[in-house]
Amino acid sequence: MNQKIVERWGVYETAIKLLNPFENPYSIVQLEAIFRSGERMVKVNGFYDGDDVYKIRFMPDAVGPWTFSTSSNVPALDALTGEFDCTDAEAGNHGPVRVASRDSFEYADGSPYIPFGTTCYAWVHQSGALQEETLEALRNSPFNKIRMCVFPKRYTFNVTEPALFVFPGSKEDGFDLERFEPRFFQGMERRIEQLAELGIEADVILFHPYDKGHWGFDRMSPDRDEFYLRYVIARLSAYRNVWWSLANEYDFMREKRKEDWDRLFQIVQENDPYGHLRSIHNGTKMYDPESLVLYDHSKPWVDHVSLQHWDLTVVDSIRRKYGKPVVVDECCYEGDIPRRWGNITGEEMTHRLWEGTIRGAYVGHGETYMHPEDIIWWSHGGELHGTSPERIGFLRKVLEVAPRNLTVIDTIKDVPALGIQNDYYLLYFGIHRPIVRPIQLPEDAAYTAEVIDTWNMTIKPIEGTFSGDCAISLPGRPYLALRIRRSMQ
Amino acid sequence: MNQKIVERWGVYETAIKLLNPFENPYSIVQLEAIFRSGERMVKVNGFYDGDDVYKIRFMPDAVGPWTFSTSSNVPALDALTGEFDCTDAEAGNHGPVRVASRDSFEYADGSPYIPFGTTCYAWVHQSGALQEETLEALRNSPFNKIRMCVFPKRYTFNVTEPALFVFPGSKEDGFDLERFEPRFFQGMERRIEQLAELGIEADVILFHPYDKGHWGFDRMSPDRDEFYLRYVIARLSAYRNVWWSLANEYDFMREKRKEDWDRLFQIVQENDPYGHLRSIHNGTKMYDPESLVLYDHSKPWVDHVSLQHWDLTVVDSIRRKYGKPVVVDECCYEGDIPRRWGNITGEEMTHRLWEGTIRGAYVGHGETYMHPEDIIWWSHGGELHGTSPERIGFLRKVLEVAPRNLTVIDTIKDVPALGIQNDYYLLYFGIHRPIVRPIQLPEDAAYTAEVIDTWNMTIKPIEGTFSGDCAISLPGRPYLALRIRRSMQ
Repeated sequence: MNQKIVERWGVYETAIKLLNPFENPYSIVQLEAIFRSGERMVKVNGFYDGDDVYKIRFMPDAVGPWTFSTSSNVPALDALTGEFDCTDAEAGNHGPVRVASRDSFEYADGSPYIPFGTTCYAWVHQSGALQEETLEALRNSPFNKIRMCVFPKRYTFNVTEPALFVFPGSKEDGFDLERFEPRFFQGMERRIEQLAELGIEADVILFHPYDKGHWGFDRMSPDRDEFYLRYVIARLSAYRNVWWSLANEYDFMREKRKEDWDRLFQIVQENDPYGHLRSIHNGTKMYDPESLVLYDHSKPWVDHVSLQHWDLTVVDSIRRKYGKPVVVDECCYEGDIPRRWGNITGEEMTHRLWEGTIRGAYVGHGETYMHPEDIIWWSHGGELHGTSPERIGFLRKVLEVAPRNLTVIDTIKDVPALGIQNDYYLLYFGIHRPIVRPIQLPEDAAYTAEVIDTWNMTIKPIEGTFSGDCAISLPGRPYLALRIRRSMQ
Repeated sequence: MNQKIVERWGVYETAIKLLNPFENPYSIVQLEAIFRSGERMVKVNGFYDGDDVYKIRFMPDAVGPWTFSTSSNVPALDALTGEFDCTDAEAGNHGPVRVASRDSFEYADGSPYIPFGTTCYAWVHQSGALQEETLEALRNSPFNKIRMCVFPKRYTFNVTEPALFVFPGSKEDGFDLERFEPRFFQGMERRIEQLAELGIEADVILFHPYDKGHWGFDRMSPDRDEFYLRYVIARLSAYRNVWWSLANEYDFMREKRKEDWDRLFQIVQENDPYGHLRSIHNGTKMYDPESLVLYDHSKPWVDHVSLQHWDLTVVDSIRRKYGKPVVVDECCYEGDIPRRWGNITGEEMTHRLWEGTIRGAYVGHGETYMHPEDIIWWSHGGELHGTSPERIGFLRKVLEVAPRNLTVIDTIKDVPALGIQNDYYLLYFGIHRPIVRPIQLPEDAAYTAEVIDTWNMTIKPIEGTFSGDCAISLPGRPYLALRIRRSMQ
């Protein structure tokens, strides 16, 4: 596997076979490589992939010739060199996503990225056939981000032991936390690549509480946590669509304290040469001055807020507090299971997406319908059954044809508004249904207005044009948005 | 007017004509009376009612003979005596409402009082014909409490000067804050009596911010505030259905501080011999440790919490914090005006009533539909146009046939529940719509279950009986409640 050509933000990989003289190559062998292009130098860690194979992966971010050389504590792996050419990115490859402003993301090539996430926590721990089904559903969905766990999930509806784990072993026989199971990662990597092909970001959840000691991955020692993180990062960070979610519902992981999260964040930051997005997702409330557990999202290694909250009006204060993009990764799921977080309607799910979006956040979808075989999208993937994804696609289209850099316009009262002052306004009324909307527009321009029915997915022009202090009549039913645009003169 | 017989909790009134030798009898004449029945003594203040007439009003709370004697700084009003007999209360007269427990109210005769309030802030400042229309609407409504202001309201949709004010004068000519306008109070008292006949409590709002200096009643001196309060209490406190709401949206009254409210509360407490219910209603949030303005509802002169909040889940923490009955007097109004607080649907209004009720609070209704003459229930009264009152009547009936002393059962997860452990449960799912509800019931009893459709106002039995750990199937749509009752053996 000696690639000679790699597209920009693609994965360069080199594999070195070395008959294995070590009892535990995962812990004994140190391998790193420095990649160079002109003045630029990037250091990456290699990893042992099993079967006597060591690998180095790298994501070039600049077009042109690159060289590399290795260093290792094993002579046979030390001072190896290589070279390849980095070509322009192919269509559909915009590079990794980064924070573009306090309210927005963009791809590395400068094109906009508007997150429309969903959640299938344990999809890579399901059967291959089910994983294929999930990919097919994602292909036909509006989603461009997915939250997914490295560790398997033990929880209501999640009681089947997966075939492969991060570590070799099983619940019955125990796990060897000093080694890894490359076959598990090889499978996961293939899924991450397939997601990239679909234009979907993989929001990789590194720790979670849905274990409670069943396997014990939620309560490993600090050394094992670090050992695990360094391996995951060495393997996955060359995939452009990876994001690091330090944990799901971190505040439910009672074995870890705030200081632990500081340390784990810094391990990720130091070992990921590309600076993939980093966040940590809360389980209950977002902040509480007296809490020993809740994490301060203003810390510099947190790129964006990954919020759980059912009330999207909370976005206003979270945005102000942190000044970072807010992704509401969980706000209840469309479904009908008994749990409170998993039985809202498609209408309500759609409404929450709109509400959070117009308040300047990015809201994620999830689905939890009862299923005869307990195959539930939120955890297992499979098929989508709900009514909200189609409407989320409609919202996505509305935003994609809007001007870039929409911001929250808080001078407009009684309704959240996103827009560009004097040019473009998107107001969302939600459960509110005034029959008239007063608005102050500049006197010296004419504006057109349209009523957007967020559920029926229609956009209807309102007769006339508007200027100055005016009042726009509305149909007086819930779940409408109003789009106001400056007319071309 | 020398009554000889007064029913218990009725109004005894005596009037004394005295050709008026004083420049300002409102400020110069002091008049009080001590009423006695056996060992019991109650001191009340008299008041000048204009036209050379002084009055003393008294609400007897015990059956039997009562006597009284006056004292005054005016010899002609001093040492007057009288007597009357107090008979049993007539049907429909249960006496004043008091706090019965940390979660409930009752009438003085011990019968339960479950508040179902509405709001017509300025209805007594409208034309007589409109006031009659309001009474007629109330008669046909499910409401048994109304929030109403003593001072007129200046605000959106409220720009007409009333005919009479608390004080003599007008906006044009100014007001004499050292005198009162008895004709205004006589009119208001008649309305309070008519409300009592309808079984409706008058939640009298003593101060409010909807003035902003237009008349200046929101920024009188401490002396004038006290003068006003003493007069209002002398006139109104003998009406059994009066409650004292110190203010509406007190935190919007920037001229008053927390210390002022302490003082005003204490003036009410000291001058009202009957201890009518006292509260103060917030405009924005309920508490904020750093606020100089927000009022501490744990103070002893606050009987119950009069909350404004749109999110009824907040009831949980408010109940825990104060340990007093929580009345959510404003949670947005059914209507279609442009303002955010005044354009929710009847469905949403009904939902909020149920949500707050099952969380252990009492939630008030309001209505704000656009009207060609700006006659809007919330302020002016008139007709009810909405769809929620009928459903609120249905909720009221459900509660009235429930056992007394329902309490919040917080051991039931994922859904709010009100009930009596092991006997009676009322679960409300709101926007949530599980298709199955697991519940743990005692093994040694059988329970019946019914689905309550809160919007369609139907109650349908679920087939079978339930015991022990069981799962109850539900229709899987929003806005349902589940009633579970122990079967009679």
